[in-house]
Amino acid sequence: MRVQGHDTRAIWLEPDGKSIGIIDQTKLPHEFATRRLTNLAEAAQAIQSMQVRGAPLIGATAAYGVAIAMKHDASDQSLDQACKTLMATRPTAVNLRWAVEEMRRYLSGLPPSARAAKAYERAAAICDEDVEINRAIGDNGVVLIEAAWRKKGERGAVEILTHCNAGWLATVDWGTATAPIYRAQELGIPLHIWVDETRPRNQGASLTAWELREQGIAHTVIADNAGGHLMQHGRVDLCLVGTDRVTATGDVANKIGTYLKALAARDNNVPFYVALPSPTVDWTIADGVREIPIEERDAREVTEIAGRLPDGTVARVQLTPDGSPAANPAFDVTPARLVTGLITERGICPASRDGLLSLFPERRLAANA
Amino acid sequence: MRVQGHDTRAIWLEPDGKSIGIIDQTKLPHEFATRRLTNLAEAAQAIQSMQVRGAPLIGATAAYGVAIAMKHDASDQSLDQACKTLMATRPTAVNLRWAVEEMRRYLSGLPPSARAAKAYERAAAICDEDVEINRAIGDNGVVLIEAAWRKKGERGAVEILTHCNAGWLATVDWGTATAPIYRAQELGIPLHIWVDETRPRNQGASLTAWELREQGIAHTVIADNAGGHLMQHGRVDLCLVGTDRVTATGDVANKIGTYLKALAARDNNVPFYVALPSPTVDWTIADGVREIPIEERDAREVTEIAGRLPDGTVARVQLTPDGSPAANPAFDVTPARLVTGLITERGICPASRDGLLSLFPERRLAANA
Repeated sequence: MRVQGHDTRAIWLEPDGKSIGIIDQTKLPHEFATRRLTNLAEAAQAIQSMQVRGAPLIGATAAYGVAIAMKHDASDQSLDQACKTLMATRPTAVNLRWAVEEMRRYLSGLPPSARAAKAYERAAAICDEDVEINRAIGDNGVVLIEAAWRKKGERGAVEILTHCNAGWLATVDWGTATAPIYRAQELGIPLHIWVDETRPRNQGASLTAWELREQGIAHTVIADNAGGHLMQHGRVDLCLVGTDRVTATGDVANKIGTYLKALAARDNNVPFYVALPSPTVDWTIADGVREIPIEERDAREVTEIAGRLPDGTVARVQLTPDGSPAANPAFDVTPARLVTGLITERGICPASRDGLLSLFPERRLAANA
Repeated sequence: MRVQGHDTRAIWLEPDGKSIGIIDQTKLPHEFATRRLTNLAEAAQAIQSMQVRGAPLIGATAAYGVAIAMKHDASDQSLDQACKTLMATRPTAVNLRWAVEEMRRYLSGLPPSARAAKAYERAAAICDEDVEINRAIGDNGVVLIEAAWRKKGERGAVEILTHCNAGWLATVDWGTATAPIYRAQELGIPLHIWVDETRPRNQGASLTAWELREQGIAHTVIADNAGGHLMQHGRVDLCLVGTDRVTATGDVANKIGTYLKALAARDNNVPFYVALPSPTVDWTIADGVREIPIEERDAREVTEIAGRLPDGTVARVQLTPDGSPAANPAFDVTPARLVTGLITERGICPASRDGLLSLFPERRLAANA
């Protein structure tokens, strides 16, 4: 997608053929800064500190992280260490696990001398596959936006509410929840996006708003508290969010607060769709609320917030009184019963085991095996 | 309630017998600063700029604002001007209207020479009545906390989630939603309060957390997004919030985001109670979502936030990219069907017309007249 009018991806191989370029997303929206990852520790730290974030981009970064590690030392021990280090960075993201396991599977059968080159090849392929998957999510999901546009008599703009950042910054390109939006823009459908700021890390206010502005799509940032009120007053046609993990039964783990928007959508008959690449499905679990571990992040993400001072510098300010503790669960689980449908690279399905199996029948065979 | 170990109220007559003391709540939680109001414009500005906020305290300040105006000029024209000026400061607050109308009614029949003294008397009485009302809300509401304590076998602590600040800072003393909490503390019931930070103005993180810390009550600040997740995991025994306006049918206008918490409470069988002094009931309207005007505040409350820099100074930082607009509806309406009960100075009732009339039967006569 576009940055300052130029097409870019969220991760790329640098011209030296070994280091990896990323956008330091912790600097957005006030500064567009790129960073070069040259070793395993830097790759792990980029994930842990959320310079890269978003399930698919975490997976892509982890894949390249393994490749970088293989360039330095392609032994079994090094491969094992790289996988362990990367896996420990973010416990909730299933794509991380998927990408690391894929790299381990792909490389462990190869002689160490062949591993580095093959690792870069596989990581690049994972990135390209992600782009193709998200483009397909866009093609499939845009149908919902076209339907919403027809339903309102092709007047005004289709009003879409999104939470957190499931945009191209969270993937390699296109984004998941944003892919249908970017496709709709290509088709000339007038759009207006309600952007939940998404406390505590404000990925909506800082990343989604930035993406949409760069892409020239009309949008309005709102406090996370506002979405229910807007839905009550008919000002949201469609909710579109991403996810970090979907259970085999269609429960959706996503950024904290997603569940509240899904409740409001149901209470106001607003369709609530979740966009995901199929590696996000965790076929091993069935009950999202009970079984998905929820990362508890640093309380300072709640008690402090970063922003730009009038002089242009970025600073953190403390919001709470000294001595008042804070809690920071990073995700919540939206039960499948609140989800209108899942948008995947293979099509749209109900958020249920049968729905998912209708798109991924090979999993039925696996389940019966 | 207590500030630095000393008992105080949120508004008081200064020793000069004419100016009014308030706490500048925009400075909290980082600085405890008081301010002296000496003329009508200062009183109106204190309300408008939210140095005082919270429905009952706005009413008390408006009453004293009329008194101050009468001290300067007790003519009919001055009384009319004072009422108009104060009424225009905050459109949603029904207590503001109630207090201003009460002062007008009380004073307009008096000769101008008698108005100033009587106005101060009536304003002081409004404050004392507010304290009595909130003490009664505490006595009535504490029963719910005692019941929650027994229900969990008197183990751990009663976990209460609250939104915004319906504490003593929002009233003259005791608070509305906090009155039962402060009463429970007096009775020795162990408590833990989940404090919604309440974006965009962060009254929870800055005011409720400050109150609870000063009062020595265990609490944890959370992003507004977190409450649904906590309820899903059984970590909230009771929701207790205040309100700016309740319809005759029990719909509840309160700080933006309240509706989302009420939806989550219902989805998880968590009792959701609203505490209110009876002047908060607007007996003239029946459909809260359609009929209550919702104040749209400055977008900069969303795009910027104030906090304390590491050097101790307070600064505003910008959260959003330049050129991304924001919207800022300040309140939402929670339909009565989501409210377990209303806690008033006369007792607890269902959130319905019949429920309210059971506590305020004189309104039935008025309705039939």
